[in-house]
Amino acid sequence: MSELPKKSTAFFEWYNEVLERAQVTDKRYPVKGLNVWPPFGLSIRSNFDRTLRSAVEAIGYQEVSFPTLIPETELKKESEHIKGFEAEVYWVTKGGATPLDINLCLRPTSETAMYPMFALWVRSHKDLPLRIFQICNVFRYETKSTRPLIRIREIHFYEGHTVHPTEESATRQVQEDLGSFAEIARAFALPYLINKRPDWDKFPGAHYSLALDIPFGDGRTLQVGTVHHYRDNFARPYGIQYETEQGGSAFGHQTTYGISERLIGGVIGVHGDDKGLVLPPALAPTQVVVIPVIGKGSKEAVEGAAKEIAASLSASGFRTKVDLSEDRPGAKYYAWESRGVPLRVELGPREVEEKAATLADRFGRKRKVARSDLVEEVRKDLDAFHAALSEKATTRFREQIGVASTLAELKGARSVHLIGWCGKEECGHQIEAGVEGGLLGTVEASSPEGILPGEAPPCIVCEGTPSRWSAAGRPL
Amino acid sequence: MSELPKKSTAFFEWYNEVLERAQVTDKRYPVKGLNVWPPFGLSIRSNFDRTLRSAVEAIGYQEVSFPTLIPETELKKESEHIKGFEAEVYWVTKGGATPLDINLCLRPTSETAMYPMFALWVRSHKDLPLRIFQICNVFRYETKSTRPLIRIREIHFYEGHTVHPTEESATRQVQEDLGSFAEIARAFALPYLINKRPDWDKFPGAHYSLALDIPFGDGRTLQVGTVHHYRDNFARPYGIQYETEQGGSAFGHQTTYGISERLIGGVIGVHGDDKGLVLPPALAPTQVVVIPVIGKGSKEAVEGAAKEIAASLSASGFRTKVDLSEDRPGAKYYAWESRGVPLRVELGPREVEEKAATLADRFGRKRKVARSDLVEEVRKDLDAFHAALSEKATTRFREQIGVASTLAELKGARSVHLIGWCGKEECGHQIEAGVEGGLLGTVEASSPEGILPGEAPPCIVCEGTPSRWSAAGRPL
Repeated sequence: MSELPKKSTAFFEWYNEVLERAQVTDKRYPVKGLNVWPPFGLSIRSNFDRTLRSAVEAIGYQEVSFPTLIPETELKKESEHIKGFEAEVYWVTKGGATPLDINLCLRPTSETAMYPMFALWVRSHKDLPLRIFQICNVFRYETKSTRPLIRIREIHFYEGHTVHPTEESATRQVQEDLGSFAEIARAFALPYLINKRPDWDKFPGAHYSLALDIPFGDGRTLQVGTVHHYRDNFARPYGIQYETEQGGSAFGHQTTYGISERLIGGVIGVHGDDKGLVLPPALAPTQVVVIPVIGKGSKEAVEGAAKEIAASLSASGFRTKVDLSEDRPGAKYYAWESRGVPLRVELGPREVEEKAATLADRFGRKRKVARSDLVEEVRKDLDAFHAALSEKATTRFREQIGVASTLAELKGARSVHLIGWCGKEECGHQIEAGVEGGLLGTVEASSPEGILPGEAPPCIVCEGTPSRWSAAGRPL
Repeated sequence: MSELPKKSTAFFEWYNEVLERAQVTDKRYPVKGLNVWPPFGLSIRSNFDRTLRSAVEAIGYQEVSFPTLIPETELKKESEHIKGFEAEVYWVTKGGATPLDINLCLRPTSETAMYPMFALWVRSHKDLPLRIFQICNVFRYETKSTRPLIRIREIHFYEGHTVHPTEESATRQVQEDLGSFAEIARAFALPYLINKRPDWDKFPGAHYSLALDIPFGDGRTLQVGTVHHYRDNFARPYGIQYETEQGGSAFGHQTTYGISERLIGGVIGVHGDDKGLVLPPALAPTQVVVIPVIGKGSKEAVEGAAKEIAASLSASGFRTKVDLSEDRPGAKYYAWESRGVPLRVELGPREVEEKAATLADRFGRKRKVARSDLVEEVRKDLDAFHAALSEKATTRFREQIGVASTLAELKGARSVHLIGWCGKEECGHQIEAGVEGGLLGTVEASSPEGILPGEAPPCIVCEGTPSRWSAAGRPL
């Protein structure tokens, strides 16, 4: 097989080719922007879902499932929301040959599907907070050019929705959501920025929107998730009201928390290298591959030992495969590396004799360990690999974030820049013009912490104060 | 809360009310036939999915995920298939305000989404057999009246699809699928019939269709799953061809295997009783509930012990909850029973003192066991409960299956009847007229085995031989 394009010089060619070769998604489906998840990609997606599920269940969310179809009458109840979505929803207008009485859209997100039910479910202050989530598919009629996992028309989506008695309680939820996202990002070894989007760029209907942004490749940034505070903006039109402790009536305050398959694209884009995928153990379909290296006459003994090792690693909870194909060891190494397997166990006649095995991680670090300690050593190496992956990504993250103090420096910038911004809309639009559309907003936090270099400088446009550290970049 | 309607005399009222009270699905969504899965129902559904997934992965299926939308051009490639579906698919005709160039339907099933990709994936005999499945949602524009889990418009669906080199290899797959269904039915303690549908009632495009039928309630039967053999009926129009070992070219032979959320409806309908849900341990969101029964001054000790017990059962892998609410024990028993929890641990001051606990299963069978043996005894009781559930269902299954030797006996029959049928279409239609539409087909197998009383009698209509045991009933 020909070499991959270089990640450093041809990022998007590299990205597309890595996804295709490893069979993460297959984009040959007869409708553009609707992709197929083959077994390998779906296994990554299932691991992704499991990580999300456990992070949000830990903060009290319960899983539900809502219909895909939303009646036009419900979609239109919140006026800003529908303005934001009406140009990009798919419309079902016929059942068989019969025109529908009320057109149904394919959910672009589920506020307007869920909130009529929340109005039934929420009666009293005792029903609050309500915290539910679903993992589903949402649809956007994208007119821009599509890209696997990043910009597509049917999107694998996690969405959390809450109702609270007060604005403050909803604000605390926003913080808890960010805490759970920190867990998820840790599992995927991914650094990120939390940016509060400018008012003109918030989610349609939101009070404010926090975006989870990562530097991606080719100087672009990728929004991989969002947390929105809605106040009672939706509760009013949808009638989500409760009886207070004092016997009065009040509208609920709401938040949402969304993460899409984009995050998988982010992980692949951030960690991958010129050999192909590099996957954190939490996402890898196969965490450990055992490869017998057969010398003369040793086939039976070596393969037998390889199978035993694989069985014992599986029994200890590692997703393990043993590769007994006829290919040469070098070809096997290459194939498994390109699919991002974190750890390889190499086993030759010598290792069998010595009751040992060689561990090689995806970064090429090798060591020989005793068979009797194998499970423990594999656990250590996977942890060490995860830590190294995280450190590498963090180092690169810091390199990708510059500081600019004049608009001239921003012009044509190929990475994220921290700047001072006074918060005024006219200054914001001038910044956007400078970086081709990307004022990511004020920086509320980052992982790792401590990327802001001291006090914020005056506004990069008007030189006014007070100003806040803000991020400018070019979002995909 | 008022009493439930009686299952024996008002089956469908009972069924609807049981689902609603336990919050299995919520049918108040603003579009008829599109239901919401609240947390309790979704937990049942997740357990259901896990059982299916493990049964089909054990016979070599791999999980994938395909788009929801199918272009009209692909849907129409197999002529019988489209005739069967065109009246009942939802059509997406617009993206935003723009009419689509090619209309897209919401999948009613995924043959026509998958097979264009199979044509790309299958190249050589080495790629066969191909066995993939997805768990997804499918859509039918139902015009009949809808019923939760049974007849709805967005359906939670398992679908397995295979490609084989020969017709025989596909036939063997059909048998393996039936084997995996036997595993699933065993996990749900569910008896069933396998009926080969009459030719005029097979799946549109199939060579033949095997249906998994259960007697349900009110004298009706429920088709909870199907296995179809397609021969090369789809492979030809979709171009699913492979290079044979001899270097020639041949079309693949295909099968499909489908199970929908109807099976959950089946489990609820078959096992439930006048107190509400009765769930097999494999499906129950909570398998064991621990209920402290507090006497004077014992609150702290009893609740402490209850929490310890719940923690140790959870650690042993049982889905366990402890109910520390302020309700009286009797009210708690009633509430958990109505949600179908298989096993309850009752713990009072006396049990704490004796280092014991009382186990009570959903059938009301009670015994006291030592705390030190609790995990083992809970395991035993759950197994015994599952066995009793299965036996009860089997006894009732046998009672619900009669034998008829004249058309007069069939007329107005309120249960499934075994009859002789010569296989001729004209006789088949007369049988259907007699039972209002339900010649379920020839009986290929059953679980439990041995329900056929000896050799098949002559055809119930023409008295011709040879004939085969067939089943007549009224499908929902």
